[in-house]
Amino acid sequence: MSSKGNLIILSGPSGTGKGTVCKKLFAQNSNITYSVSATTRLPRPGEENGREYYFVSKDEFENMITQNQLLEWANVYGNYYGTPLNKINELRAQGIDVLLEIDTQGALNVMEKAADGIFIFLLPPSLAELEKRIRGRGTETAEVIKKRLDAAIDEIALGQHYNYLVVNNNIDTAVEQITAIILAEKCRTSRNIDIINKIKTEEI
Amino acid sequence: MSSKGNLIILSGPSGTGKGTVCKKLFAQNSNITYSVSATTRLPRPGEENGREYYFVSKDEFENMITQNQLLEWANVYGNYYGTPLNKINELRAQGIDVLLEIDTQGALNVMEKAADGIFIFLLPPSLAELEKRIRGRGTETAEVIKKRLDAAIDEIALGQHYNYLVVNNNIDTAVEQITAIILAEKCRTSRNIDIINKIKTEEI
Repeated sequence: MSSKGNLIILSGPSGTGKGTVCKKLFAQNSNITYSVSATTRLPRPGEENGREYYFVSKDEFENMITQNQLLEWANVYGNYYGTPLNKINELRAQGIDVLLEIDTQGALNVMEKAADGIFIFLLPPSLAELEKRIRGRGTETAEVIKKRLDAAIDEIALGQHYNYLVVNNNIDTAVEQITAIILAEKCRTSRNIDIINKIKTEEI
Repeated sequence: MSSKGNLIILSGPSGTGKGTVCKKLFAQNSNITYSVSATTRLPRPGEENGREYYFVSKDEFENMITQNQLLEWANVYGNYYGTPLNKINELRAQGIDVLLEIDTQGALNVMEKAADGIFIFLLPPSLAELEKRIRGRGTETAEVIKKRLDAAIDEIALGQHYNYLVVNNNIDTAVEQITAIILAEKCRTSRNIDIINKIKTEEI
């Protein structure tokens, strides 16, 4: 089984429950860690710099872009979001799996740069259920809800570019499936060719 | 998650513990079933027709070949072994996963015919350990042991053509990995494109 940490990309439309799924996944798997993103958006109440995000200025962010220090970045609703590269590579070299929880625009960018990434698309059980969840947050205006739902319909079509589709109907089932995907990918032949070479050259 | 049963092919050199791994896998997963092979070799003590194998005559077997009723077949050490196709398709349509435990020659044939199969190669932890296991059976002559070990070295190179490599160092770990592979494959995008289409066309 491959000892190098994997890069796992969990994405999907807004409101599918990526955050909740991730929390449970981390609680059950000590060998997976978050990649903390950088953003120029303002912290929400309770958010801490370096935990939810690295909160940076627009100038700082644009500097990271030009220095090629980001695995991906995107401008969403007027704010920058991006994934710092150096930390991810450090963790993977130590055998730790790194999970990016990012929007679909960001995930498409990562696909171009990280061919060995494991791309998991989280789907809502239905559009009706997705609408209910977005409304349930109670933090968005009717206009934003409509905008997000329209965006979700477009985004769902992007699922075809991912390696795996997980429907978040029941959170425990979704987490069980993602845990299985992570373990299975460690056994992928493409990540383990060295095992064959090692046994073949063994002296007996 | 795909509701069609998958075809899982577990293969590897003689002596890697395919049979033991399968027994434990079946004990823990009620939704997986064996594909019972047909063979022209004589039953060993305790083997039952229709359970370990369908024991058939050479004429009967050659008839199945010409009637195209086998997913794969091979002649190993002078005996025919093959996989009847009709039963597999029936089970998969019912949502049951079907596992073929076959030798590497048979698996290569299945690769050509079943592109949607999940090919898992079971490796011994080392050649030294494999030799110990083959000797440990106590049923083989020195000549047969040497022949099998030489064959195993050639066969291990075939592992590169499989989707997954599982090292059978610890049986529980190997079974856990295979269980994860089977669940993960049910979430593969290529097996679930209909989910995307269904959500996209939903009326809200």
